[in-house]
Amino acid sequence: MVLSPDPIDVSRSTRPAVVVDTTRSPHAAHEPVPLGHVRFTDDLLAPRLRTNRTVTLPAQYAHLVETQRLQNFNRAAGTFDGPFAGIYFNDSDVYKWAEAAASALVAGDDAEDAPTATLRDLLERVIDQIAAAQDADGYLNTYFSVDRVAERWSNLTDMHELYCGGHMIQAAIAHHRATGSDRFLNVARRFADLVVATFGPEAEGKRETADGHEEIELALVELYRVTGDARYLAQARFFIEVRGRGRVGGGAMFQDATPVREQSVMVGHAVRAVYLNAGVADLVAETGDAELRAALDRMWTNMVTRRRYISGGIGSRWEGESFGADFELPSARAYTETCAAIGAIMWAWRMLTLEIEDDTRYADAIEHTLYNALLPGLSLDGQHYFYQNPLTNDGSHRRQPWFGVACCPPNIARVLAQLPSYAYTVTGRRFGESDGRHDMVWAHLYADSVATIPLHAGGSVTLRQTTRYPWSGEVTIAVTEIVEAGDFTLYLRIPGWAKGASGDVNGEALPAAETAPGQYAAIRRTWQVGDVVRVRFPMPVRRMIAHPYVTDDAGRVALMRGPLLYCVEAADNPIGDVRDLVLEDDAEIVAARRPDLLGDVLVLTADAEIEAPAPGWDGALYRELGEVTRDRPGRSQVLLTAIPYFAWANRGAGPMTVWLKRTSEGGGAVIPTAPPQMS
Amino acid sequence: MVLSPDPIDVSRSTRPAVVVDTTRSPHAAHEPVPLGHVRFTDDLLAPRLRTNRTVTLPAQYAHLVETQRLQNFNRAAGTFDGPFAGIYFNDSDVYKWAEAAASALVAGDDAEDAPTATLRDLLERVIDQIAAAQDADGYLNTYFSVDRVAERWSNLTDMHELYCGGHMIQAAIAHHRATGSDRFLNVARRFADLVVATFGPEAEGKRETADGHEEIELALVELYRVTGDARYLAQARFFIEVRGRGRVGGGAMFQDATPVREQSVMVGHAVRAVYLNAGVADLVAETGDAELRAALDRMWTNMVTRRRYISGGIGSRWEGESFGADFELPSARAYTETCAAIGAIMWAWRMLTLEIEDDTRYADAIEHTLYNALLPGLSLDGQHYFYQNPLTNDGSHRRQPWFGVACCPPNIARVLAQLPSYAYTVTGRRFGESDGRHDMVWAHLYADSVATIPLHAGGSVTLRQTTRYPWSGEVTIAVTEIVEAGDFTLYLRIPGWAKGASGDVNGEALPAAETAPGQYAAIRRTWQVGDVVRVRFPMPVRRMIAHPYVTDDAGRVALMRGPLLYCVEAADNPIGDVRDLVLEDDAEIVAARRPDLLGDVLVLTADAEIEAPAPGWDGALYRELGEVTRDRPGRSQVLLTAIPYFAWANRGAGPMTVWLKRTSEGGGAVIPTAPPQMS
Repeated sequence: MVLSPDPIDVSRSTRPAVVVDTTRSPHAAHEPVPLGHVRFTDDLLAPRLRTNRTVTLPAQYAHLVETQRLQNFNRAAGTFDGPFAGIYFNDSDVYKWAEAAASALVAGDDAEDAPTATLRDLLERVIDQIAAAQDADGYLNTYFSVDRVAERWSNLTDMHELYCGGHMIQAAIAHHRATGSDRFLNVARRFADLVVATFGPEAEGKRETADGHEEIELALVELYRVTGDARYLAQARFFIEVRGRGRVGGGAMFQDATPVREQSVMVGHAVRAVYLNAGVADLVAETGDAELRAALDRMWTNMVTRRRYISGGIGSRWEGESFGADFELPSARAYTETCAAIGAIMWAWRMLTLEIEDDTRYADAIEHTLYNALLPGLSLDGQHYFYQNPLTNDGSHRRQPWFGVACCPPNIARVLAQLPSYAYTVTGRRFGESDGRHDMVWAHLYADSVATIPLHAGGSVTLRQTTRYPWSGEVTIAVTEIVEAGDFTLYLRIPGWAKGASGDVNGEALPAAETAPGQYAAIRRTWQVGDVVRVRFPMPVRRMIAHPYVTDDAGRVALMRGPLLYCVEAADNPIGDVRDLVLEDDAEIVAARRPDLLGDVLVLTADAEIEAPAPGWDGALYRELGEVTRDRPGRSQVLLTAIPYFAWANRGAGPMTVWLKRTSEGGGAVIPTAPPQMS
Repeated sequence: MVLSPDPIDVSRSTRPAVVVDTTRSPHAAHEPVPLGHVRFTDDLLAPRLRTNRTVTLPAQYAHLVETQRLQNFNRAAGTFDGPFAGIYFNDSDVYKWAEAAASALVAGDDAEDAPTATLRDLLERVIDQIAAAQDADGYLNTYFSVDRVAERWSNLTDMHELYCGGHMIQAAIAHHRATGSDRFLNVARRFADLVVATFGPEAEGKRETADGHEEIELALVELYRVTGDARYLAQARFFIEVRGRGRVGGGAMFQDATPVREQSVMVGHAVRAVYLNAGVADLVAETGDAELRAALDRMWTNMVTRRRYISGGIGSRWEGESFGADFELPSARAYTETCAAIGAIMWAWRMLTLEIEDDTRYADAIEHTLYNALLPGLSLDGQHYFYQNPLTNDGSHRRQPWFGVACCPPNIARVLAQLPSYAYTVTGRRFGESDGRHDMVWAHLYADSVATIPLHAGGSVTLRQTTRYPWSGEVTIAVTEIVEAGDFTLYLRIPGWAKGASGDVNGEALPAAETAPGQYAAIRRTWQVGDVVRVRFPMPVRRMIAHPYVTDDAGRVALMRGPLLYCVEAADNPIGDVRDLVLEDDAEIVAARRPDLLGDVLVLTADAEIEAPAPGWDGALYRELGEVTRDRPGRSQVLLTAIPYFAWANRGAGPMTVWLKRTSEGGGAVIPTAPPQMS
């Protein structure tokens, strides 16, 4: 192993350039590592972050221009005379793009590279446009400018004014933290001040309601964190507490049927539900509200044990883009909006920050959702997006370069730009040793990378991860630099799937109890430069089955390896329809690296069978048991090749499935008599 | 067997009191038997028809009053000053009620009974209100009256003006045929004349579009039949041909993506799709258009082999109340609107009329859909309705006394009132023997009943069915009266499920080939009073399985007996959750009559097992294969009791399922941690 000589230059980002800054939150345990302090150098995430900065964000800017989303700001500023273009919540796409751009500037690995410089210029121009569009009283929403001024705040249920405002605040904070400038932040503050003056208890003469689409809540908590203005925290609390009493509208679909602190299950529009819960967790980090925390715990348990796809995606229903009932998880009609996966990551991260727990559940969920529910939303070329992410498809579902409702593309961009901030946290401020100087450094994500982590005791430690994770379970973490203190405990996530994990420090084995799956291995030392920790996560292919109440997956198996979910796609399996494949439980599955394929992936291959479509059915839809023979006519031996689910639909259109039949009794392909006329 | 001495008094209904009168349609083979000529005397349908007339229709009238649906007509007439009440298509509920009432008056078995007399009075009052609301130019839609006159015809895509108008025409025809009066019919004609003047090719200066919700098409064909005015037929043809070219709007959801004659699959809003196809079949009956007929055949095949529930219900998706993809048939989220089942019956009936076919598919479909998809929509008390008809439910889905969108209740009422007209047809007008006088009498539905069937050769024959069908497969048909001619062929439907059927005429066995399932047994004789035909349909319990592409039904079995689909409901199975029941393939199933239960039904019982909810899963949603033990912890022996699906949800709320697990690998119950907050 070679110790990497490339420490991060953190001189550019001394501020807490993160999205969720719990550094001073009295009821949060984990503090972030500034965004610019972690740099991925791997072959999977790092190229995507680079593509995000150099291809995706410039391309998205072009879409913002072409679709007149930016022109709407000029119109509001009085410098463009024409109609409002697009949908009433289009401002939010601009804000998410700005947040992504600001974040990407911080994480950029070379200040001199041309795209980054261009991006910086574009961002500043966009902020000029945004600032110019703001009304004298702080109001800012271009749909309600010019000819709809009288309609402001008239339909909070549906019109997304505070949703857009929340994204504006998040973007302003990201810009402030990335650049130190207050000019966008002041726009956000003026807007937030207007919100504070407008919404609150009726007894105070205010509007006692909240936005139909949550987002402002988490933004206001963060604005409190960055400004110290407690009115913003109180306003977030008001919006959370007013919910669930029928004042918002939309009922359970908009999380307005039950007060948050009484809620136990995930209901309604999936994106809204997880955005709300992220904001609630932010509130809990500041207030320590035990009842709200208990509600979050109940909802989290409901989501992960009954309402989440094996991909980590959430939202089972097309109607209302919503959660379904417990165990209602249809594969072909999975809605699983990319934004909902992003929201689930946002929520999981905030849950992670609240307490010191030995359980890796939140970090496991973040990693799992990242690879299997967020990354599938973006093409390898960085310019095509999925809004829905079905787990099986006939080939008709293809990524699009943009959408009329374009929430997902800039949302993907901002999370990718901020991804390095999810890798590590630090605790110890309140929960440390009696000397008050004992730090805990938590490693949540594994990827070839270098991170410089500030410590409470003073100084910092630089950790160099060398690994081919997630393709390989061998991770080496070397201490390459220590400034000042070296006494801290390193907590390494042992993923819940990592049975038989092991590790060592400078060759000395870790106790087996430390590397039990689903916990963090704790290693306390006075660390020295040159210390090396190795962890090994065995990565056999795992055959996964679904809870028997998930009717759609009955008799089926899905393949996972390490954190990655796999699927079979027509491009690799040219014989028949992949949805007719049958994988016997005892078939050997072989993993093999394919550097030529989809940007260098590890594929799984196995001997399998493919059935003639529904042998013996002859066009009948229901038959008497016994009329259909149980032998296996029309089966052929084939070599099945599975690829990571995140990489599907990057080649020619064709059927795909995550869940494979285990026997001929299971479901299979749909062979229409004519091309489908509706998806 | 006792020959019934109760011939029908047809003196009250000498006119063709039917809904679809193909008597003179040049390209239809089957002619209806007038509605008043068939009277059910059985224990299942007859009580429902009586309840419909004496309870349901009066109760629905009260709802029409209470919800101001009738007041809207007064408002349009200028006799009420107030706002329009309810939804823009509320007029159609009034029209469907009127059609039901007119039909019920014809089918009423006692002109002296008080409810019938009251119903007649109510109907005439409603017609007064309707007629008074009509505009001078023939326009009639109370939503667009008074303050929305300028908006007439401005949004055909969404606003249902011609849909409402179509139901008005159908109601007027039913009233005309029931009473001989022209006064409502003249209202309909004036409206239709306005439609003819307004819609047509742009080249003629008309509006070249159609209604987003089909209905006017079939109504105009029938108006042509009753008036002889060929402009109405041409107008129906225009509305059908203009469709599928993007002029209607709504795309595939409104059947506007593909011209009807090029259509092959059932797409979009299910009610609209089958209403359209019913109208197309009506058009084919008049024009003989072979291309349209071929399109209907393709769509029929697609529906029955890929897009229909085992209940006969159609419409898999809540979003858009629409058909899904091939084999997309989720049980819990089945939409299966009651109106869609009604539309499917309407379409099937018109397909049946087109040609002489030995195949019983259309009559089988009508019977199956009647018992298993329409009747479940109505409570035994006749005053509660299902809009959606799921095939499994946690107990939260309950019939309601009325709906804001109340299309289903009066639709159920009109089909029940007209049900006797589905029992028999007559052919022979064009397809008979060379003497031109040979009649064919077709028996499509079995129920204890008496029918007086007019013959082309002159006179009539009265047939008395004595049977406990659908509980028993023994059907005796006696000739109790013959007026004039007795030489005709009697065609008896041998249902597709009736393996091993047999029959005799006056004790002389029918050839086995005649009683093969799925065909009509043909018996030609010179019939005499006292002739007796017996048919026997063996009714073993049938274990049904679904096509392997129906993923939701994998590893499951449904029970049928004769035409009836069964389900298990909590009320009869108090231990555990019925969705956890496991019925082994070799368990004996016993059928037993329960006169005390649900109005006298035949239940099925079997030894079964009930599982503890998902033993070994411990709150996990996905597990590695092999982690879950395959033995059967927590199983208990129970006696399973199944009831006809049409009778579910008439007792206390509780889980229900049609599809039962065959093994512990199948899906099962949902045991929420808290009461569901959304259905």
